Amino acid sequence: MTHVPYETLRWVGGVDGHLVLLDQTLLPLQEQELECTSVDDVWGAIRRLSVRGAPAIGIAAAYGVVLGLQQATHDVGRFQQALKSTLEYLATSRPTAVNLFWALDRLRDRAAAMVGNHSGSEIHAALLEEARAIHAEDRAMCRAIGQNGAEFLQDGMGVLTHCNAGSLATSEYGTALAVIYTAQDQGKQLDVFVDETRPLLQGARLTTWELMRHGIATTLICDSMAAQVMREGRIGAVITGADRIAANGDVANKIGTYGVAQLARAHGIPFYVAAPSSTFDLRIATGDAIPIEQRPGEEITHGLGRQTAPDGVGVYNPAFDVTPAELIAALITERGVITPVSENRIRRTLGAGD
Amino acid sequence: MTHVPYETLRWVGGVDGHLVLLDQTLLPLQEQELECTSVDDVWGAIRRLSVRGAPAIGIAAAYGVVLGLQQATHDVGRFQQALKSTLEYLATSRPTAVNLFWALDRLRDRAAAMVGNHSGSEIHAALLEEARAIHAEDRAMCRAIGQNGAEFLQDGMGVLTHCNAGSLATSEYGTALAVIYTAQDQGKQLDVFVDETRPLLQGARLTTWELMRHGIATTLICDSMAAQVMREGRIGAVITGADRIAANGDVANKIGTYGVAQLARAHGIPFYVAAPSSTFDLRIATGDAIPIEQRPGEEITHGLGRQTAPDGVGVYNPAFDVTPAELIAALITERGVITPVSENRIRRTLGAGD
Repeated sequence: MTHVPYETLRWVGGVDGHLVLLDQTLLPLQEQELECTSVDDVWGAIRRLSVRGAPAIGIAAAYGVVLGLQQATHDVGRFQQALKSTLEYLATSRPTAVNLFWALDRLRDRAAAMVGNHSGSEIHAALLEEARAIHAEDRAMCRAIGQNGAEFLQDGMGVLTHCNAGSLATSEYGTALAVIYTAQDQGKQLDVFVDETRPLLQGARLTTWELMRHGIATTLICDSMAAQVMREGRIGAVITGADRIAANGDVANKIGTYGVAQLARAHGIPFYVAAPSSTFDLRIATGDAIPIEQRPGEEITHGLGRQTAPDGVGVYNPAFDVTPAELIAALITERGVITPVSENRIRRTLGAGD
Repeated sequence: MTHVPYETLRWVGGVDGHLVLLDQTLLPLQEQELECTSVDDVWGAIRRLSVRGAPAIGIAAAYGVVLGLQQATHDVGRFQQALKSTLEYLATSRPTAVNLFWALDRLRDRAAAMVGNHSGSEIHAALLEEARAIHAEDRAMCRAIGQNGAEFLQDGMGVLTHCNAGSLATSEYGTALAVIYTAQDQGKQLDVFVDETRPLLQGARLTTWELMRHGIATTLICDSMAAQVMREGRIGAVITGADRIAANGDVANKIGTYGVAQLARAHGIPFYVAAPSSTFDLRIATGDAIPIEQRPGEEITHGLGRQTAPDGVGVYNPAFDVTPAELIAALITERGVITPVSENRIRRTLGAGD
């Protein structure tokens, strides 16, 4: 399969332009773009998961602010009111997405620094610039993660990944998958095994799709098969993304990650986590303090087009788990690789600036 | 939920009677019995997985032979021809099911010992007796497994199981689940966690259903959640069935079992396997010699009512895995408990007769 480039999201035109998203709800069966010409369109795209993944949500929301102000630039008073309501509105699209608030705060701060001595049009132009900067920084961050991690993957290696920490969750190369794409760019042939990632099947639906689009040998397995594939000696490295990393290096990520890390340990396979520095929350001492979101049981019992368990059955559906730092061979960030994982090394690497 | 008894399969009447099966293809949404009044009905029920699980298939096939001879008892020559063709026909219903051949061989031997000095009717009656004996022995075997294993489960304990090794796979109490049912009969309250068991969801569809029917507190999880549930301290024991056990105690069982065993080890949780002595294959030295059946990729990509992965994706779908004996705290059989697991102890326990 040849590599046909695609973009998870792109801005078309200037301040009066619009946002184009790949509609991820239709993957892997249809590749269809969604044109967002209003803040309502962006709000709906985030809410419906047409765009997903923390970095991608942040970028989409930033462009959403620009869209929300297109009709309000002729009057500074009206502009400020529209800015406030647009920011508040977009914040309701996915209230658990940290990057959403981070991006909205960044645009709010940029505007706040200009109010008083700039016109609405000038601030509007500056906000587009800021959204584009967020977008470009994400692209550069993914590339840097890939560059920093590619040394761990060797030509001919089998690599296991879980969930989707790739292009589709970011602007371009992703985090865990950036390491794979960069290794491939360096001429290494990899065999990538993808956990389907129950209950929501991000691995089956999204990761396989984008790996195949990048021309990488891709094999889908059920989550329950990872141990067997490791036992057969097919896996040289495991690499996943992260949702949140504590100061000691404990990693919260999609449910199933912790089990894969334990299985990697049992088979002597290094387990890597790739994530931007913004994923670290140094106010949290250890993973024990990270709350585990519980999601509706129907995701398991009714998640796949038909009911697969009896009415009334008890269900436990944690969205995340925590992998202790001691199981992680290295944390791969855009600022460098942290290995072995320790709080000192994390603070040193993150504090080094970029 | 109160315990409403049900029977996986039962014979109604005498030699001219018929077989009634719970149609497992309709579970967990419908509880409907299937009346098998001809050998064709039984053949179709086995083929369609209306009846499944090695012991249950063997029992159904044995009754199927009785059905196949109902029209052929008046003429010994015709009877022998009908017996041969019925045995051959039923053997094609599920060619990988060891118990199917075992049961058919047993009926063939019983008939062979009578041919020459008995009428077709007499042999027919003897074959029903033999089928009923196979059925009764299975019931007693399940009860004995339950009695032998129940000591390992304590009141208030959380227990994890994988796939379906219960009533639905046997005539009554099952193997792994017999241990749970017997512990409950002894007045112990258990919290049973059930892996959904991708790709075919036997845990979600069947195990939850029968545990709930037995009045047991049941919680369904995805396979990828087992590690997290263990880490939370909710599991005191893991218990599964087995498809085949090598002379050294290595266990082939449903894909995912090996990973669960590794995770149990990592959390200091004992991992038990419950299986009848007929599951042991002492001609096989270790699990390395057990071939792993590969099944169609569509079970993963199209298994649940809709397509969940891209067209053309590579898929690896092993039906079984092998859990090494060193991860198994005890093998629970109808002849006694084997712990610690070793070839010597296996041979001693199995050789002790019953």
